[in-house]
Amino acid sequence: MSTPTKFVLDESQIPRNWYNIMADLPVPLAPPLHPGTLKPLGPDDLAPLFPMELIMQEVSAEREVPIPEPVREVFRLWRPAPLYRAHRLEKALGTPAKIYYKYEGVSPAGSHKPNTAVPQAWYNAQAGIKKLTTETGAGQWGSSLAFAGALFGIDVTVYQVRVSYDQKPYRRALMETYGAKCLPSPSNTTNCGRAILEKNPNHPGSLGIAISEAVEVAATHDDTKYSLGSVLNHVLMHQTIIGQEAMKQLEMAGDDPDVVVGCTGGGSNFAGIAFPFVGQQLRGKGKTKQRRIVAVEPAACPSLTRGKFAYDFGDTSHLTPLVKMHTLGSTFTPPGFHAGGLRYHGMAPLVSHLHALKLIEATSYHQNECFEAGVLFARAEGIVPAPEANHAVKGAIAEAMRCKREGKSEVILFNLCGHGHFDMSAYSAYASGKLVDQHYDEKELAMALAGLPSVPEPA
Amino acid sequence: MSTPTKFVLDESQIPRNWYNIMADLPVPLAPPLHPGTLKPLGPDDLAPLFPMELIMQEVSAEREVPIPEPVREVFRLWRPAPLYRAHRLEKALGTPAKIYYKYEGVSPAGSHKPNTAVPQAWYNAQAGIKKLTTETGAGQWGSSLAFAGALFGIDVTVYQVRVSYDQKPYRRALMETYGAKCLPSPSNTTNCGRAILEKNPNHPGSLGIAISEAVEVAATHDDTKYSLGSVLNHVLMHQTIIGQEAMKQLEMAGDDPDVVVGCTGGGSNFAGIAFPFVGQQLRGKGKTKQRRIVAVEPAACPSLTRGKFAYDFGDTSHLTPLVKMHTLGSTFTPPGFHAGGLRYHGMAPLVSHLHALKLIEATSYHQNECFEAGVLFARAEGIVPAPEANHAVKGAIAEAMRCKREGKSEVILFNLCGHGHFDMSAYSAYASGKLVDQHYDEKELAMALAGLPSVPEPA
Repeated sequence: MSTPTKFVLDESQIPRNWYNIMADLPVPLAPPLHPGTLKPLGPDDLAPLFPMELIMQEVSAEREVPIPEPVREVFRLWRPAPLYRAHRLEKALGTPAKIYYKYEGVSPAGSHKPNTAVPQAWYNAQAGIKKLTTETGAGQWGSSLAFAGALFGIDVTVYQVRVSYDQKPYRRALMETYGAKCLPSPSNTTNCGRAILEKNPNHPGSLGIAISEAVEVAATHDDTKYSLGSVLNHVLMHQTIIGQEAMKQLEMAGDDPDVVVGCTGGGSNFAGIAFPFVGQQLRGKGKTKQRRIVAVEPAACPSLTRGKFAYDFGDTSHLTPLVKMHTLGSTFTPPGFHAGGLRYHGMAPLVSHLHALKLIEATSYHQNECFEAGVLFARAEGIVPAPEANHAVKGAIAEAMRCKREGKSEVILFNLCGHGHFDMSAYSAYASGKLVDQHYDEKELAMALAGLPSVPEPA
Repeated sequence: MSTPTKFVLDESQIPRNWYNIMADLPVPLAPPLHPGTLKPLGPDDLAPLFPMELIMQEVSAEREVPIPEPVREVFRLWRPAPLYRAHRLEKALGTPAKIYYKYEGVSPAGSHKPNTAVPQAWYNAQAGIKKLTTETGAGQWGSSLAFAGALFGIDVTVYQVRVSYDQKPYRRALMETYGAKCLPSPSNTTNCGRAILEKNPNHPGSLGIAISEAVEVAATHDDTKYSLGSVLNHVLMHQTIIGQEAMKQLEMAGDDPDVVVGCTGGGSNFAGIAFPFVGQQLRGKGKTKQRRIVAVEPAACPSLTRGKFAYDFGDTSHLTPLVKMHTLGSTFTPPGFHAGGLRYHGMAPLVSHLHALKLIEATSYHQNECFEAGVLFARAEGIVPAPEANHAVKGAIAEAMRCKREGKSEVILFNLCGHGHFDMSAYSAYASGKLVDQHYDEKELAMALAGLPSVPEPA
C-alpha cells in the first residue's frame, strides 16, 4: 500500500462557508406553495416553524453562506471528518477501481446529521427559542438534535417512528442521555397522532406522520419551533461541508472521482457529498471532468426511481407547505425495513430537481443485498456501516465490480454517512437469515399517487 | 476558545516501537510460576497457548520493541487517535484545571482493545495459527479480536461472561458481523464450564471463568492458540502507543500533565496511557516533572484498593500460571455491574508492581457516580463514554473539582478508552433511576483471599 489509508485535515480547515447550489442551477427550483392558497410561500408563512435566519437560508441565492464561528467551534469536536482510501475493500473485491469513502460516523451522534443539527439549534438559540420539536426515523436525526440541544440549552422533544422506537431502544437511550424527550409516533399527544391511532391503534408510524406531530406541536405553541433533519434547502446546504472537505482530501490524494455515490432517504447526506461536485460541473460548463453522480435508495421506498415528480405535502396530515419533489404520495406508508432513515415518501426538492435535469442518476437495492455489502465492508475496513449507509456501500461496490468487468480503474467516492452501532439487531437478523426483503404494496402506491394534490403549474 | 479542541497527528506519526517499561523498573517484576512445580516459568511452558514471538515479548527487557509494518498498516484505519482539550467540560465544571482526554473510541470496535488484538492476531497468523480462543466481559475485547481475526483469516471463538452476554446483545452481534463465534460462559463446551454449571446452572459467569474455558480449549487443541486482552506484560506493552501519541499531542498543545488518570480492570488501557509517563519519570530520576498517576477502579471489584498483593491464578479453574498481582482471589465472583470490562479478580502484575513501588495511586467509585459523570461529559463533549471509561471520567472530574477548591490550574490527562454505544441499556437504567450501586459480599471476599495459593517467596 504505497498511498495513505486516510486523509486527515486540521480543524483550521473546516469549511468557512456552506455551498448553496441554488446559485448555480441552470433552471430555478419550483417554489413551495401555501397549502391553502396554492400561492408561492413567503418567508412569513414559515415564521411559526423556523427562526428567520434559517428561512432566509432556505430561499437564499448566494453561492456561499458563512458558517457562524460558534458553529465551527462545535464542529471541531469531530470535523474535519476523515476521507479513507478503501485499500482492503478493493483487495477483497479484486477491482482495479480506486474506492474512497468519506466517513461521517465520527460525529458524537454517529452520522452526518449533527452537521445541520448544530447550526439549526444555534440559530434557534440566537432567536431566543428554548424548545424544539422534531421527528426521527432510525433515531440518527433525533439523537443529533438532542446533542445539539444539550450544547445550547434547548429542550428537544423527538417524535420517533414507532417501528424504529421499538426496534432501536439504544437510540432512544442516546437521546435521553443528551437530555431530550422521545415519544413513539403516532402518539396520543397530538391531534394528528390521535386521529391515526383511532383508525389503527397498531400503526407502525412513518416519517410523514412523525413530521405532522412535531409540526403540529410547534405550530400551536408560541415558545416552540420545529426542526427538520433533511429535505429542505437549508438542511441540504448545511451538509455541503462533507463534499467540500472530500474535495480537499481527494486533492491531497491526487485523485478526482469519476463516480460519486450516496444513499438517499430525504436526500441530505447525498446532497452533502454530491452538490459541491455537481456545482463544480455546472460552473465549469463542460470544461471540467464529467462525473456520474449516483443516488442509491431502498427498493422498498423508491421515491426517485418509482415516485412521481409532482407537488406534494411533506407530511401525512397535510400541515406542511406543498413542495415539488419525487414522491410516493404523502399517504404512502413504507414497509418497516431496517434503514429507518430512508423510510420517507418524498425526496428533497433540490435532489428531485437535479434528477429531472439529468444531472444525477438513481438506483435502488433491497435490504439483504445491502447488508451483504455492509458485512463485506466491515470485515475489510473494520467500520460497521449503518443500514442506511449500506445502500451507499452496495452502490459503490456495484460500481467497483462494473470497473472490474470493464477493466477500468475509475475513481469511486462514496459517503459512509454513519455507523451501525445502534442498529446491530438488524445485523443479527441478517446473520441468522431472518432478514426479509420487504416490498411495498403496489395498490397502496397507486392509491397514494392517485391522491396527490392537484396543483396548477405555477407561472 | 483560543487553543484548539483536538490535536491530530498524521498516520506517519503512528509510533514505530512499543515502550517496554520492564527496561526501566527500579525493582524487577516477580516471575510467573508454574502452577504445578511453583518454579519460575520458562518460555516453553507458555508455548501451548501463545506463539513464540508473543512469549518473547512477555519476557523482553528491551526498552523499545519494533511494531511490525503490517500491524502499523492496520493501525492506519483509526490511528493516531485524537487528543482533545475538554473546553466544554471545563466550562461546565467551572474549574481552573485544563482537562485533556485521549479518545480511543475511534477504533472500529470502539475501544483501545484493537491496539493489542491486531498485533496478537498478526503474530499468530505469522506462526500459521488458524484458530484463536479468548474470553470477553462487556465484549470490547471479544469484538476487537473478532475484527483482527477477520483481517488475518483467523477463526475466533469468544467465551463471553454470561451476565454481559445477556445484557449486551449488540456486542455479540458485532462479533458475529466480524465473523467470530460467541458463546455464553460458563458453557457446556468445556470441562471447566460444565463443572461450574453443575454446581450452579444460573451462574452469571466471570472473566476468571471465561479465561478458564478459553485456555482449556486452546490447551487441548493443537491447532488453536489463546489470546488475552489484558493483564499480561506484552498486552500492556501493545497499549503504550496511547501514551506515546498523547505525549506528542500534549507537546503540540504546549502542556505537560500534572495528573494522568485511567480506569483499571485488568490494567491495559491504564498502562497504555500511564506507562510512557511513568517511564519518563523513572529515567529522569527526579529531574523530570513529578506527576501523579491515578488508577480508578469500580468499588464493587476493587483489586488495587482492597485486594492483596500476592501470587494467584489468573483464572477460576486454575489452569493458568501463578502471577504476583493485586487480587481479590481467583474464586471471587464480582457483582454484575455494567462495566463488564472491569469485572476481574486480579490486576496486571506490572500495574500491581508499580502500585507496590508507590509509583501510582489507586481510588475507586460506585457505578451511579460514574454514570453521573458520564452523562455530564456526554452533554458537554458529545461523546457517550463506555461504562468502564466513566470511571476515568469520574476520576478526572474529581481531580478537576479538587483544582477548583484549591484554586490550581493543573493539567489533567485521562484516557477515554471507549464509547458506550453498545452499553446504552446501562444508560437507560441510570436515567430511569433503576441503576443500583452493587457491593461485593465481604464474607465471599474474605474466603477468596483466605483461599489464595500458598507460595514460598521465590529466591
